[in-house]
This record gives sequence, C-alpha cells and structure tokens, in this order.
Amino acid sequence: SLPSTAGAEPGSRPAAVAAVLPAGGCGERMGVRTPKQFCRVLERPLISYTLQALERVCWIKDIVVAVTRENMEAMRNIIQRYGHKRISLAEAGATRHRSIFNGLKALAEDQPDCKLTKPEVVIIHDAVRPFVDEDILLRVVTAANEHGAAGAIRPLVSTVISPSADGCLDHSLDRAKHRASEMPQAFLFDVIYEAYQQCSDYDLEFGTECLQLALKYCHTKAKLLEGSPDLWKVTYKQDLYAAESMIKEKISQEICVIENTKDEESVGYLLKEVLRNELNFVNITSTPLEHTGGNIQNFLIAQCYSFICVNVVSSNFQETQKFLGTLEESSLPLLYPVVVVLVYFLDLTLVPLTQEMENLMWIRELAKEVKKRNVLLSGLLINYSQDEQKLQESLRQGASIIGALVKERSSALAGQLLVA
Amino acid sequence: SLPSTAGAEPGSRPAAVAAVLPAGGCGERMGVRTPKQFCRVLERPLISYTLQALERVCWIKDIVVAVTRENMEAMRNIIQRYGHKRISLAEAGATRHRSIFNGLKALAEDQPDCKLTKPEVVIIHDAVRPFVDEDILLRVVTAANEHGAAGAIRPLVSTVISPSADGCLDHSLDRAKHRASEMPQAFLFDVIYEAYQQCSDYDLEFGTECLQLALKYCHTKAKLLEGSPDLWKVTYKQDLYAAESMIKEKISQEICVIENTKDEESVGYLLKEVLRNELNFVNITSTPLEHTGGNIQNFLIAQCYSFICVNVVSSNFQETQKFLGTLEESSLPLLYPVVVVLVYFLDLTLVPLTQEMENLMWIRELAKEVKKRNVLLSGLLINYSQDEQKLQESLRQGASIIGALVKERSSALAGQLLVA
Ligand SMILES: [Mg+2]
Ligand SMILES: [Mg+2]
Repeated sequence: SLPSTAGAEPGSRPAAVAAVLPAGGCGERMGVRTPKQFCRVLERPLISYTLQALERVCWIKDIVVAVTRENMEAMRNIIQRYGHKRISLAEAGATRHRSIFNGLKALAEDQPDCKLTKPEVVIIHDAVRPFVDEDILLRVVTAANEHGAAGAIRPLVSTVISPSADGCLDHSLDRAKHRASEMPQAFLFDVIYEAYQQCSDYDLEFGTECLQLALKYCHTKAKLLEGSPDLWKVTYKQDLYAAESMIKEKISQEICVIENTKDEESVGYLLKEVLRNELNFVNITSTPLEHTGGNIQNFLIAQCYSFICVNVVSSNFQETQKFLGTLEESSLPLLYPVVVVLVYFLDLTLVPLTQEMENLMWIRELAKEVKKRNVLLSGLLINYSQDEQKLQESLRQGASIIGALVKERSSALAGQLLVA
Repeated sequence: SLPSTAGAEPGSRPAAVAAVLPAGGCGERMGVRTPKQFCRVLERPLISYTLQALERVCWIKDIVVAVTRENMEAMRNIIQRYGHKRISLAEAGATRHRSIFNGLKALAEDQPDCKLTKPEVVIIHDAVRPFVDEDILLRVVTAANEHGAAGAIRPLVSTVISPSADGCLDHSLDRAKHRASEMPQAFLFDVIYEAYQQCSDYDLEFGTECLQLALKYCHTKAKLLEGSPDLWKVTYKQDLYAAESMIKEKISQEICVIENTKDEESVGYLLKEVLRNELNFVNITSTPLEHTGGNIQNFLIAQCYSFICVNVVSSNFQETQKFLGTLEESSLPLLYPVVVVLVYFLDLTLVPLTQEMENLMWIRELAKEVKKRNVLLSGLLINYSQDEQKLQESLRQGASIIGALVKERSSALAGQLLVA
C-alpha cells in the first residue's frame, strides 16, 4: 500500500477517490441466462472478484455498484456472504451509460438523501474485468487528476474494418494508429458528472465510450495509458474459462508446508525440496504445526490457499483437526476453496498400504464436514522406501499429485486417499 | 461431409480448394519463449489442433503451412507424430504477409519444382485459431468463389479509439460501424496471388490485412461474413487457458459406459441414469464389453474419449486388459488423453473396503503402462449399499468423481483408486 498523498498537485493522487461499477448487463453475448458478472468462477460470482480487486486498494473510499432492480437482492447477498466493504448500490439504467450516470448521482452532493461524499476523482470500471491491479488504478487516477480524464488502452488484436452497406469491405484501419479502449478509466468527478448531465438521450442510449463524453461535452482530452493484457473483459464463454484458469493459477502460486516437529526423519524437508523442483513458479514456504493456530489468517491474507500437512505415520489425528479448526473458526470469509493435503509417509515393506488406509478412513468423514466451509481435504500416502531411487520416485509422484490437487481444486475429489 | 460440387457457379463451392496457414510468428505477446502455435494444450502443440480442424474438411485438398527454418524439423515431427495428412511445408518469411506469399507460391504453377496443384480458391487461416469449423470454411469459400474474396468478421468487444501524438484521445470510432476482421478468409487463387505479386515492400512489411491487399491491388471487394465467437485468436496466456478449457469441454461431451454383461445386478444401468442426471450436457452412451474390440476406433472417430467400465466385484481382470489392449493397438494416434475409469461396486457391509482395494492394486501398475500411450486409467469403488438412500448418495458421488476425471484429464491422478 502506497503512502497517502494529500491535495491535488499535478502528477499526484488526489485524496478523495471513489469508483463506479456498472453491472446492469444482461449477458446475452455469453449464450447463457445468467448475466456474466454473476456467472460463477470457482463457485463465486465473477463480480465478487472484481469487488475484491477494488477493495484491496485502500485509497478507494467508496465503490458504487449499479445493478438492475431484479438483481439488487442477489447483489446484497453477495456483499454479505463474501464480506465486501465500502460498497453502495445504485439502480442500473437501461444502458451502460445510464447505469454509470446513476452511479455518479449516488456520489454527487446535489442529489437528495445522498450519504456518500463527493470524490475529487472517480474511477469507472467494469464488473467483468476482475484482474485490475493497484498499479493501473493509481496510474489512471493520477493522470485523470492532471488531465481531467484518463483510460487504459491495449493494442488491437485484430484489424478493424469498415463494412459497406452491402456487407463488403469498404476499408480497413491502420492497426498501428488505433487502440482498443479498455477499463479502468478515471475522471475528475466534476468533469464526468457535467458530461453526463449535458449528455443527449441519443448518446446515453447508443454511446459506448465515457472518454468520448468527456471530450464531446467538456472538451477534456483523456490521457491514454497502456494497460496489461489481463485487463480484458469477460465477454464470451471462453473468457469465463480463461478467468477461472487465471484465478486458479494466481491462488496456486503459494503452497505452505506445515511440518509436524515430532517428525524426526525430516520427511517434510525432503518433500519441500521435491515440491520446489517439480512445481515451477510455485513458492513453497513452511511453518511448524504449532505455530499455525494464530497465523492462519495471515496466510489467507497473503493469498496462500494451499496447505500441505506433513505427518509421520499414524501421527496425531487431533493436531490435524486443530489446524482445520483454526481454518473453520477464522472470521475471514474463505474467498477461494482452500486445499489441505494430509501427507503420510509409510514404508510399504513394513506396513501394508491398505492397513494404513484403514487407519486414515477418518479423513473421508472429516473432508465431508470441512467441505461445507470451502475446505478441500485429501489424504496422500507416500511410500517411504529405504531404496533411495524408489523414494525419490514416490516423492516426485507425490509432488505431482499435490500439484494437481492445488491447481484444479476439484471439490469432487475431496476426501480421497491418494497413493504415491 | 457435404456432397462435392463441381465447377464454379456463383454460390457454390469450387472443386479445387487449398489452405495456407502462416505459422512463422514468434509469440512475443504470450510472454513465453515458445511461439504460441507450438504451445502445448493437453500436451499437444496448438497448431496440431488447427491442422486437425482443417483436415476434417475432406474438400480441402492441400494445406500449406509456412514455418520458420528453425521450426521446420519440429513441424515435421508434429505432422508425423499426430498423423496429419495433406500437409506441405513452406518457409515462413519475416512478416505474416511474406509467410502467406511463400505459402501461395507453393501452390502456384509458375514456380519451379511445384508439386501441388493450383487451387481455384485458397483459404487463409491462422495456426492459432483451432476452433474453425466446416460451416464457416464453406461459407468463406463459397463467397470467395462469387466475390473474389471473403472473410469472417466479429463485432468489436471494445471501442476503438485513435490517439493523438501526445498520447491523448483524438477521437473514438462508432462501434456499430466497425468490425473486427478475423480468420478464416478465402480468395480466388488468381486474385490473391496477383495481389501479393503486385504488393509493395511497405505493405509486405507493415500490412496486417489480406482482404485489404485484394482491394488495393485487384479492386476486389471482399464479402464479410459473421463468424462465431470461437474463431478468436490465441494471443495471450489467458487465451491459451481458454483454448485448453474449450478443448477439454469438447472432448468431455461424450462418455461411453462399457457394461460387463455378466453384471446381473444391472449396476451399469443405475450408474448410467445417475451420470445422465448429474452431468448435464454430457451425452452418455453404452455398449457391452464384448462389442468394444472392433468398435474402439469408431468411438475415437466419433470424438468419444471417455470410457467407464462397469464391473461386478472382483470381475475379470483379463477383460479390462483386453479392452485397454484394443486402445493400445489402435492404429489411430490418440489425439487427446483417453480417460478410462474402472468402476467396481462393493457392498461395504459384506467386504471391507481395504480388502477390495488390495485386490485392485494391479490397476496402479497397469495405469503406469497405459499412460505412456496417453490413456489415463483410474479405479473407482462405489459403495453398493442395500440402503436405497445410501446407494443413491454413493452413485451421485461416483458420478461427480467421474465428471471431474473426465473434465480435468489430469495425468497426475492416473492410477489412483477412488472411493464413492
Ligand atoms: Mg493487471
Ligand atoms: Mg466455429
């Protein structure tokens, strides 16, 4: 988080920033009935991810979401269930521009029973662009503070053409001279509010570009800022798939190995090494079991949603339950499914595999319980062979099973006992 | 497959059609070293999916792929490994237009040692658009035959803007009056070849639009045809994720339940019913085990890559091996990972779970073997309770495990014994 800057000197961030999120779309392009902002990604509505991205930025004071009357109740439930803060609701209009205008009205001081404070700068973003980060938000806000308006742009992926009336090519545009206008955008509040107040019904109905309204009605030329590819808008079914994979990738970048310190054979150390080798781009940290109690919230806050509990054979069932208990009792809503893998090492020449599995049948029952709280628990038995080569092979297979459980977060596979 | 039409009357498909696929790009936009057409999706290079899509269309006689000299050998290996047919290679140029021109030269009769026949119409497509189907190919080819040129278009997802020299908004374009130009495109061969021969060095270097070359150099106004959203170009990392999910979805739409006819309790019937209820949008077919031998190729041709073998408890190991043998001996390359789930029903009040698991340990070894041939084998034990409600719950859980195995095709989880 950045130091707060006061005032509105050119090039600095203003003190009072709010955001408006039009979310009234009906999603007909997705080919599904659910409006795309309410489509579920890892069981959670897409808009909740976007709200989370905006909330993480502490200097955005208010977030106004414009939703249709029929989705108002559903939106309130989302806010409550996922613990969203600083959100106000406005009623969406029939078009995107009308929804934004309604969102701005909720922030304007000239409106009756307005409870929010008018910001200096307002961000306009889309509910269906969940990957917006603080960097681009700060850049558009700072540029808007200086230029009156600013927006993220991207190079064109396809050439843009203009068809003639008979459906044939009239001309194609020079790709180098054009850009795709993306979100977020930001405006001096007075500029964009004035533009919407002046805006013709035709523009409110058919316009698609806020920057254009600021130009047309307030002669404000928006500063254009290059954004990253992940600002793309979730529009079609394949975009929803892409968003799900991107989110899965993001939350699979941190794995915490929880070591039972009674482990004198230091199998935890071995497993960590193999995980580091086998799972590229994943950050493997570790912590002793007895320290996890108070820390569990910190792990979740630090975006770690994968825990590997390493146990010696027939280790204490209660300690695992205690750890899961701290997850269950955490006051934070679990925004992503939490993967917990209980790893047991077992020398198959000494103990038959199936006997150990019988001892671990309680994992199946426990998994059913914790699944209700969005925790995906599995057991993993690793053959702790005296043969160094066999041990390495089991460790590698164990690491790749852990990789798959962490990456896929499949609730259907929770409660299984896997064997490496 | 459509009836072949001879001649070139307006509105009909010409007899001789070829395709050119520029694949010389270096993929710098992906943020990875591998050019995106060679990035792996379910372990297979993306370009192989695109070639498969074109090959399925029997009336495309030749497919010319333009690849850089350093990727020529890799491309030959892909063609051999995945059994691609009707492919010729040309050398890619430094730009997309130069690569296409080289591809066209390989089809022109005026070139020395040309082995291919000049087509009436040539399709130009991208290696990184794997979801092209026969319908849009036929439409662009037929329209090109009538108009001289034709291309697929899509509505713009974002507003297109024109920046001024100082990086501010100059103007935004009316979204309703513009379209994104996508692929495939098609041309009368003589038109596009003439255009490339006349083409200036500047256009060969900086141009991005083949339809524009036909217009500029041959005064041919291309017919524009609305394509489906899945024509999108794999450009960024999220597109690769989207492509993988789309492909997984496609190959998970068919599940074949292989019934052991010695099954007198007709558990196979029960499982089929539950699969139909639990897995929406999946087509569940069934066939008796003894009929699968000769049919297996037909299943693969019909895009069925998921087999659920239903067995009564302690059923014959040899029959399963025979079935897997027919998969292994199939002369068809397995273009996708094949999921095989061996389902066993077991009354847990009569036989302890772990005893049955011990009996099924051979699945782990067999899975290791068949994985080399891209077959992902798992075992699934379903509790065949006398209690109707418990039985239904186990069946539902079994169906959701099958759904996850079929959808995710995770090779790390092959060889596991799962329990429902
Ligand atoms: Mg970003
Ligand atoms: Mg298609």
